[in-house]
Amino acid sequence: MDATESAALMSLLRTQPVASLATLHKGAPAVSMVPFALLPDGSGFVIHVSQLATHTQDMLHNPAVALLVTAPLAVGDSPLALPRASVQGQARQCLPVARGYEQARQAYLAKLPDAVPLFSFGDFSLFVIEPEAIRWVAGFGRAMSLVGERMRAALNPPA
Amino acid sequence: MDATESAALMSLLRTQPVASLATLHKGAPAVSMVPFALLPDGSGFVIHVSQLATHTQDMLHNPAVALLVTAPLAVGDSPLALPRASVQGQARQCLPVARGYEQARQAYLAKLPDAVPLFSFGDFSLFVIEPEAIRWVAGFGRAMSLVGERMRAALNPPA
Repeated sequence: MDATESAALMSLLRTQPVASLATLHKGAPAVSMVPFALLPDGSGFVIHVSQLATHTQDMLHNPAVALLVTAPLAVGDSPLALPRASVQGQARQCLPVARGYEQARQAYLAKLPDAVPLFSFGDFSLFVIEPEAIRWVAGFGRAMSLVGERMRAALNPPA
Repeated sequence: MDATESAALMSLLRTQPVASLATLHKGAPAVSMVPFALLPDGSGFVIHVSQLATHTQDMLHNPAVALLVTAPLAVGDSPLALPRASVQGQARQCLPVARGYEQARQAYLAKLPDAVPLFSFGDFSLFVIEPEAIRWVAGFGRAMSLVGERMRAALNPPA
């Protein structure tokens, strides 16, 4: 993965406000939209979800999740070749008493300021999804899989 | 579901070229991007995928899938309130010998003309996802679940 591809991946993850969250629901895959933010060191994807929502119950039952971030379609682009990153990971609830809560909340609100009022709703809580693998498709025929140190380095590039 | 909401759902499904496809991969949820089209009578979502891709193998092992279609973010919209439709369904491969193949191919290519060359690749095939339930979120706090006759009517409105 060269610096240009790494920068394109980070640009996608930092600028796109929403992702598709896949969870396991009663043994079948389910998918829903979630606003998300990346932690400053790239170690986790922060989402803020309602206890009343199916995906939240799914994550509490089974933390294995996947997250897809897709680039918006610009005029003249082929929808077949949209850049996208698919993340496999483990979701853990991050309560206000948890270490890292304040950092996760700040990262989320810096990207999604509209969500401020939701933090006063009792049924909403933060989850942090720790990535285990990323499939990064930079365009048609330009796909790569990232795990371990290579993935961590891509998500936490030198400033 | 009133006519305005039904029209908004159909407009989303007809105009958005890509969806997020959730599959079951070795017991865990996975999610990937797929271009898609709706059959003219609304009875299925057509996708065209490579046998080499993980999601295709996942669907052949377990046909339970979910599909998410999200509206693009326009200037001034809140990412928290983006209209989106989440479909639960069953995916079945639709080979050229199958009844309905030609109709599925035509629906797909009418929406995704860039895919014409891929139909000459031996590893690509069509799958049709038959919807069982749809969760339609028209905006913040405006969500509804559609199943059975109500879902079929929403997907096949009078011309």
